[in-house]
Amino acid sequence: MRGRRKTPWTPARCMAHAISLARRGRYTTDPNPRVGCVLEKAGRIIGEGWHYRAGEPHAEIHALQAAGGKAHGATAYVTLEPCSHHGRTPPCAEALIQAGVSRVVVGMQDPNPLVAGNGIKRLREAGVDVEVGLLEADAEALNLGFIRRMSEGRPRVCAKLAASLDGRTAMWSGESQWITGASARADVQRLRAASSAIVTGVETVIHDDCALTVRADQLTLPDADEIAQRQPLRVIVDSGLRTPIGARILKQPGTTLIVASQDHAHLDMAARQQALEEAGAEVIVLPAQAQGRVELKGLFEYLAQQRDCNEVLVEAGATLVGACLQAGLLDDIYLYLAPVLLGQSARALFNLPGLERMADKVHLKIHDIRAVGEDWRIQASPVSVAPDMTIEDKGYGTEHN
Amino acid sequence: MRGRRKTPWTPARCMAHAISLARRGRYTTDPNPRVGCVLEKAGRIIGEGWHYRAGEPHAEIHALQAAGGKAHGATAYVTLEPCSHHGRTPPCAEALIQAGVSRVVVGMQDPNPLVAGNGIKRLREAGVDVEVGLLEADAEALNLGFIRRMSEGRPRVCAKLAASLDGRTAMWSGESQWITGASARADVQRLRAASSAIVTGVETVIHDDCALTVRADQLTLPDADEIAQRQPLRVIVDSGLRTPIGARILKQPGTTLIVASQDHAHLDMAARQQALEEAGAEVIVLPAQAQGRVELKGLFEYLAQQRDCNEVLVEAGATLVGACLQAGLLDDIYLYLAPVLLGQSARALFNLPGLERMADKVHLKIHDIRAVGEDWRIQASPVSVAPDMTIEDKGYGTEHN
Repeated sequence: MRGRRKTPWTPARCMAHAISLARRGRYTTDPNPRVGCVLEKAGRIIGEGWHYRAGEPHAEIHALQAAGGKAHGATAYVTLEPCSHHGRTPPCAEALIQAGVSRVVVGMQDPNPLVAGNGIKRLREAGVDVEVGLLEADAEALNLGFIRRMSEGRPRVCAKLAASLDGRTAMWSGESQWITGASARADVQRLRAASSAIVTGVETVIHDDCALTVRADQLTLPDADEIAQRQPLRVIVDSGLRTPIGARILKQPGTTLIVASQDHAHLDMAARQQALEEAGAEVIVLPAQAQGRVELKGLFEYLAQQRDCNEVLVEAGATLVGACLQAGLLDDIYLYLAPVLLGQSARALFNLPGLERMADKVHLKIHDIRAVGEDWRIQASPVSVAPDMTIEDKGYGTEHN
Repeated sequence: MRGRRKTPWTPARCMAHAISLARRGRYTTDPNPRVGCVLEKAGRIIGEGWHYRAGEPHAEIHALQAAGGKAHGATAYVTLEPCSHHGRTPPCAEALIQAGVSRVVVGMQDPNPLVAGNGIKRLREAGVDVEVGLLEADAEALNLGFIRRMSEGRPRVCAKLAASLDGRTAMWSGESQWITGASARADVQRLRAASSAIVTGVETVIHDDCALTVRADQLTLPDADEIAQRQPLRVIVDSGLRTPIGARILKQPGTTLIVASQDHAHLDMAARQQALEEAGAEVIVLPAQAQGRVELKGLFEYLAQQRDCNEVLVEAGATLVGACLQAGLLDDIYLYLAPVLLGQSARALFNLPGLERMADKVHLKIHDIRAVGEDWRIQASPVSVAPDMTIEDKGYGTEHN
């Protein structure tokens, strides 16, 4: 086309670009947040960068290095408030000041209540013009788990489920290989790679002998080998320490954490714990809830506060995933639906004890439905879980009318 | 835009327009086929029409009336071979010949083996140039049920199902009002309106007291009142004549047909049959299959051959719809998925007795997924039903791996 002008680098476009740069760290920054930075001067991008891995330079430092002396008088667009403290790397606010950056546009403030605003304050004290909140929702979407951990001391929790079109996850025998196709399984690999931890139940370990690892050859991503160097923490909810000593999951790279409940703490458990530790597991004991089960809210808080987990992916059977849902602990559900039917005797997606009436049904908001190979992925989040499911009158209704 | 030329009336465009005209009869032509006709001359459309209702003029007659004397030397595009016999209206082949149409392009030949080709033959004998098969697949798609009935003596059978995202159709109590929203229910009204008959099971009649009617005020279509004048035949599969005398379905406009099985034919049945007939039903007795149930293949053949049914919609519970599926009788499934969860104790979508192993799972081909209000409609057809489902070794698999 004749006379087409280049799209100008408006502030919104600069920030959008910084956000897309931040996304490149999606699978590698854990437990750090994903951050991108763009340096703009006189309508041109003179430097850009993103945080790739914890311990390596932050996004701002990469951008400043790329710009060199040209950074003087430039505007920096950063998706997250620049840090003001000395961590594993020197503070980015200082680096921006020393480079002579005259204006900093921040997507969102640091969610950590102890440090929030300090980076912005430091920049302003040094005479730098600071604006906060450009494309804030998009900047937040990069780090939902990190924000949750910093502000509430708990992680973002998603569940991954795979089912037939009639909502069945396995035959009654437990046989489940395979419902979904290779594309869906690769998609799950990427969900795992973006997670800090994968949580499962001991029944799934016993029946499926799952590994729950990120496998470079299945990610179908350019930097798959780099990504697979970090294995998400594997967590087995196993109140009575029934994980088999020979389980595949114990022999994988990275850490397998077995979580027992206090109600089962007795002599046999000590021997069992020792055997599992010798087999490669780490074992902890957490408070119990009804029926001696591990109290899940406490487990997730432990994972955020003690293990720096931002995003937790639950890959479990109907009982554990149903318990997470009913406890109001699930933020998002990734449901892979395969174009097959398994019939009424096959296994259910969610065990939801006490759900007896239509009025108590769990409402979801569907955010996205997309084809993944031959399967379909539905991303949805719970919008209501009936707080008190009780059995009342059960008149017949008329869905067929 | 400057100098933009009008899209020319190519043969394919003329036929595509005739097909879109035919679709206007979708809800009203039953038991006749949907047919559209376009008359083109010197690059202009000089007449068009479609068949609206059995007993009223065919598409060709409407188009010829619109064109008047200009039809001489024109080309007619007709989605279905023009009729050559005197039915309730005079033969269209004769009308085209008498109007002096010089060329006829036919989407598809008449599927009735007794008459197929006679209209084309008559036209050719009269010196009219005839071409057959332009956009044939699209022309066939207008009348899948009609074609099936004419060529095989059985109807096209679709199942409508509504379920939660975890594949549940009702609470265990039977309560099911409402899983899906108003938009999905209006969509189901249109499925009914396009059907010759609605088939359900006696359990659904007993538990839901369903009416299974087309309701003008719920169709959300411009000619809703016209459409609702024709009520699809309502069919209750009721081997033992358990339909309640006071059932709502017996009091609706149109015909309710109750189908009993021969195995239940005894003295009590005669009294029961008489009572149901007095309550407004028509009762027939068909051969039985295992467990005294009505033999479904025979039922569908009866509906096509004795009741002129082209399209049959099954709206039933998991047992009847599962039996249709396992008998290989379902052509298409319309599954409405609501963004809710009902849990493991709620009712299943499909009862598929004997399906014990993953290898026996029923494969579907998904043709369409679309949002319908807050719900999602999946249109799929079975591509395989394991012919011999047997119990063999049931090793544990690894869907969680």
